[in-house]
Amino acid sequence: MIIAMKRGAEAAEIQNFTVLLEKQGVRVHCSQGTSQTVLGLVGDTTGIDEEGLKAHHLVEKVIRVQEPYKRANRLFHPEDTRIDIAGPGGTIRHIGAGHLGIIAGPCSVEGRDQIVGVASAVQKAGAGFLRGGAFKPRTSPYSFQGLGCEGLDLLGEAKRVTGLPLVTELMDIRQLEVFDQVDIIQVGARNMQNFTLLKELGHCRKPILLKRGYACTVTELLMAAEYLMAGGNDRIILCERGIRSFDSYTRNILDLSAVPALKKQSHLPVIVDPSHATGLAWMVPAMAKAAVAAGADGIIVEVHNDPERALCDGEQSITPEAFGSLMESLKKYAAIEGKSL
Amino acid sequence: MIIAMKRGAEAAEIQNFTVLLEKQGVRVHCSQGTSQTVLGLVGDTTGIDEEGLKAHHLVEKVIRVQEPYKRANRLFHPEDTRIDIAGPGGTIRHIGAGHLGIIAGPCSVEGRDQIVGVASAVQKAGAGFLRGGAFKPRTSPYSFQGLGCEGLDLLGEAKRVTGLPLVTELMDIRQLEVFDQVDIIQVGARNMQNFTLLKELGHCRKPILLKRGYACTVTELLMAAEYLMAGGNDRIILCERGIRSFDSYTRNILDLSAVPALKKQSHLPVIVDPSHATGLAWMVPAMAKAAVAAGADGIIVEVHNDPERALCDGEQSITPEAFGSLMESLKKYAAIEGKSL
Amino acid sequence: MIIAMKRGAEAAEIQNFTVLLEKQGVRVHCSQGTSQTVLGLVGDTTGIDEEGLKAHHLVEKVIRVQEPYKRANRLFHPEDTRIDIAGPGGTIRHIGAGHLGIIAGPCSVEGRDQIVGVASAVQKAGAGFLRGGAFKPRTSPYSFQGLGCEGLDLLGEAKRVTGLPLVTELMDIRQLEVFDQVDIIQVGARNMQNFTLLKELGHCRKPILLKRGYACTVTELLMAAEYLMAGGNDRIILCERGIRSFDSYTRNILDLSAVPALKKQSHLPVIVDPSHATGLAWMVPAMAKAAVAAGADGIIVEVHNDPERALCDGEQSITPEAFGSLMESLKKYAAIEGKSL
Amino acid sequence: MIIAMKRGAEAAEIQNFTVLLEKQGVRVHCSQGTSQTVLGLVGDTTGIDEEGLKAHHLVEKVIRVQEPYKRANRLFHPEDTRIDIAGPGGTIRHIGAGHLGIIAGPCSVEGRDQIVGVASAVQKAGAGFLRGGAFKPRTSPYSFQGLGCEGLDLLGEAKRVTGLPLVTELMDIRQLEVFDQVDIIQVGARNMQNFTLLKELGHCRKPILLKRGYACTVTELLMAAEYLMAGGNDRIILCERGIRSFDSYTRNILDLSAVPALKKQSHLPVIVDPSHATGLAWMVPAMAKAAVAAGADGIIVEVHNDPERALCDGEQSITPEAFGSLMESLKKYAAIEGKSL
Repeated sequence: MIIAMKRGAEAAEIQNFTVLLEKQGVRVHCSQGTSQTVLGLVGDTTGIDEEGLKAHHLVEKVIRVQEPYKRANRLFHPEDTRIDIAGPGGTIRHIGAGHLGIIAGPCSVEGRDQIVGVASAVQKAGAGFLRGGAFKPRTSPYSFQGLGCEGLDLLGEAKRVTGLPLVTELMDIRQLEVFDQVDIIQVGARNMQNFTLLKELGHCRKPILLKRGYACTVTELLMAAEYLMAGGNDRIILCERGIRSFDSYTRNILDLSAVPALKKQSHLPVIVDPSHATGLAWMVPAMAKAAVAAGADGIIVEVHNDPERALCDGEQSITPEAFGSLMESLKKYAAIEGKSL
Repeated sequence: MIIAMKRGAEAAEIQNFTVLLEKQGVRVHCSQGTSQTVLGLVGDTTGIDEEGLKAHHLVEKVIRVQEPYKRANRLFHPEDTRIDIAGPGGTIRHIGAGHLGIIAGPCSVEGRDQIVGVASAVQKAGAGFLRGGAFKPRTSPYSFQGLGCEGLDLLGEAKRVTGLPLVTELMDIRQLEVFDQVDIIQVGARNMQNFTLLKELGHCRKPILLKRGYACTVTELLMAAEYLMAGGNDRIILCERGIRSFDSYTRNILDLSAVPALKKQSHLPVIVDPSHATGLAWMVPAMAKAAVAAGADGIIVEVHNDPERALCDGEQSITPEAFGSLMESLKKYAAIEGKSL
Repeated sequence: MIIAMKRGAEAAEIQNFTVLLEKQGVRVHCSQGTSQTVLGLVGDTTGIDEEGLKAHHLVEKVIRVQEPYKRANRLFHPEDTRIDIAGPGGTIRHIGAGHLGIIAGPCSVEGRDQIVGVASAVQKAGAGFLRGGAFKPRTSPYSFQGLGCEGLDLLGEAKRVTGLPLVTELMDIRQLEVFDQVDIIQVGARNMQNFTLLKELGHCRKPILLKRGYACTVTELLMAAEYLMAGGNDRIILCERGIRSFDSYTRNILDLSAVPALKKQSHLPVIVDPSHATGLAWMVPAMAKAAVAAGADGIIVEVHNDPERALCDGEQSITPEAFGSLMESLKKYAAIEGKSL
Repeated sequence: MIIAMKRGAEAAEIQNFTVLLEKQGVRVHCSQGTSQTVLGLVGDTTGIDEEGLKAHHLVEKVIRVQEPYKRANRLFHPEDTRIDIAGPGGTIRHIGAGHLGIIAGPCSVEGRDQIVGVASAVQKAGAGFLRGGAFKPRTSPYSFQGLGCEGLDLLGEAKRVTGLPLVTELMDIRQLEVFDQVDIIQVGARNMQNFTLLKELGHCRKPILLKRGYACTVTELLMAAEYLMAGGNDRIILCERGIRSFDSYTRNILDLSAVPALKKQSHLPVIVDPSHATGLAWMVPAMAKAAVAAGADGIIVEVHNDPERALCDGEQSITPEAFGSLMESLKKYAAIEGKSL
């Protein structure tokens, strides 16, 4: 961390300020120019409050050189992290470190036939994981809010039938007790900065699929991962799912540059959700392929056997047929990139 | 709600689609043009799933004419809502309907002397409410997270000394049991779409200060208020506190046009937080005055007796002296706008 | 400017790099830490190419301490600049340094009766300047593009009748020869980074009203002013007119925090356009008052005698009556802020 | 176009309004509901002023069903457009309709050796076109502004040596007379809404590479293309080059969903500029591959033989070696997508 002091700050004042900084466990190198003094902080600065420093009357600018996250940082963990998930039959599936995770399924669980039907279809087409919402975050209190525990039971049945591990969203830590059968817990975009929830999930032993908030930076996503990891949970999958912009052609803007950015900064696997990002089913295959080309470790995609009668987000769900032909393309892309599906 | 059907949709198909719509409790007026049919839905459309309609293969465009919120809607509640808060001595303070609510205090409660000192100072300068954080949402797990219950106790003491009602943030519904002394519960920007929390606070009898998420639209803020109101809590204060943009000169962009927008769409009072919006203490007075000029029903502003030693957000806190002279200006502005302080 | 070198950069390499920097006319102070070397550049760094430095393989971060503009910078010109404009009768009007400039008129000149009628109405209500478009930048090639030279003639007539100096937009430097009667030349938001145009207008002797591009930062606006000033024209009026965001309730987001930001960084006067920013006539008075409360040196507002028949942007034009009552409010606000109208 | 009239609008008023609309050359279908009347406009509505309609006191909402552009619209031109460019030796190169255009070269022309060297290197690696700036739009008046006419001459020499057609930016229509040797004229992002320039280039017979403004929507880009096409120039190549967002990790956010969006709405070829979008050389190959996977008709990428000594934008330029290995990957991607290079 580098601190440019204000012009005219006196030597004695700067000396006192330096002592204050060193009490926080860092060493301070002082560089006195003719008009301005610059301090360089050496050591672990993750605990230093940047905002607090900026408020000090002697300080002109504060610049972080080191990123404010540690456990999620590739600097301290150069190899890619691979998340291993044991399926029902004892088989183990991987995400990251050369393994593409393909997660598919409907937005919401709507009934037994629907979820088992879609699960079987995506499994046949090559998906490795089943997604489906039981507890749904909806912007309107008057919209369908998910089947809740009944939905979880139906997901469990689909898992038994197909052998696919389950990915579903948890909105409240008290739901954890009914999540026994769930293999990967999703934290939704709107909860990415629900720090209470993150802290509690840090103590949980299941892998977490952490979606990027729709107006959160790459660094903020890594700080949210750091919250989980600070609690001891190091099985985190990051997910880019679109950010807000001024153009409403697509629901959000899929920020694929976040994929190489996250992979450079962190060792955690990064997957992409082209369905929520675009909100347009016809655009999903193109963006799923682009995600893999950009270096993603997987995709999470909405598939529905009857998009027009879906209880939510039908507009962005592709059919099992479209998913099947997408998988054919992805296999070729994976081969070029040297990744296994 | 208006639905433009796709060109070439057949009459029989449209007829079936119309029956489907009418089952959802609305009447449908059909206008057949030469190349395109347009349906107009009459009745309560708040429960109709716009996204679902857009996914239908016969539908080209869907346009909401009526807003998707009811209880928060000025259309059904033309008069301004006034929130009454009883102070410790039995005096009642108002926010809305011509009454400016002035909420001031430090970002975080840090100790007895600090909070009682700031509370006394802002009360003398004319503040009507004391703010202060006991539970703090911080982007880094390594930052100061607030004093918790001890902070609430200290706030209680400041309330006893000054008579100022308390405003503080709740991050987890389980904290409600220790919020007895709190007069207005704040829902932070990062929790504006924590729907689980909103649902539970809908059953609470205390007024809620609902902060706009930093990337949420005016309509989404009103939908979040609707979540609270659908549960029975109609004492909601909306708060504009800055939105994200491409310019990092200020921490966020204070969207003052949200004030007239919210007041046109809703009967709820609207206040403004210039401290978090700008992140720059020297800019707070100008933006506080602009907020009142734009029609706000109050402000919430950070005041700290020693901004340079504040444990969080010192950069955006003004001193009690600066707050005092801001209050002098606001009194004149309130007089022009015909509002009481 | 501060340059943090990469960890592991060797002393000899850094030495060579330092020599390279000093050739560009700055002195370099080197601070060697245990793990990282930090260079501080002293002197005029406006000509140093920040992007170029960032590309160097030895460089980790580059931080500008000094702003990249000189002539527009308040640091080198602490007093407010006042723009003086001589009206047709020899009277002189001021904008800046305590003088509010009120510019009003229709979006487009549409005909003699319209422009003379509106001009007379706004002059009676207290406007100091007449605005009106003769050359119009329209997003569609099929929309009305303005009356061109005929429009300029009609503006000239309105000036003769009312004595109001004229403000109108120039889109092409070749139009300058027909701008004789124009008193303030407007550069539109879409041309704020038309550097060719800026360079040529830098040699012109008329004041320039420079509108902020709808996705340009405060710093970029000041750099655009610097282009004009580098050519010798120091009579620049900056104008905030709304920036793009994710919320489409208003056409753009009026960024009023840009007013104190620009006035802190620069000595140039800053005015606000609430009409283009919001696109909603009913919101214009609230935002015009907020602009003055935020410290603006004036406003530019669209007034039309018949908004419903306006050939462009009728939705955002207020009537002469609404403008009259806005002026009554603004007089009170100006009095509080100690400014003359 | 659909117009929802205000509740309570009287039949006679609506009748008059309808007559007004029909005078503008469209037929109007009126659908009278119990509480609201909806008008459907049939015919060519590109000339109807949407903003003007919204200002009318009888109108509540206006919805465009048909896009406001015609010549750029795929609806009226279902086949992909292919742009043919004759190289110096009589060979013809294609962009669009199954042909990937690969444009590579330095940001700026800096000297003979540099431009001829880079041109030869990219030609050997498989580039089809040479890019290089002679006239540079720079945000600071104190930055290097390009070599101008001398730069054009050097580009001409590189063309003679390598046979690569030239792509370079035009900033002022008066530069056209020295653009004889230029094969594709680039309109930069900051000039995308310089309507004066667009109108003049509409009369020019050279293909135009039109870059998306960094805060312009997909529709606005197509309207800018419509300006060019309305003048008679139908050889337009659209270019996505990143949009502004709240995250500063990359210079801009590369909006790859714009590729399928533009190709669905328009028949024009769409290429992608990963260099300006990200501003980070190490990210360029990943995003170039993602662009082709998303369906782009080509890329334009900055290559410099000595990025650290580049006079502008070195940070985003890749070396000829990196470009060579990118080309190897792109060949495989093109094969999967059935496109020729």
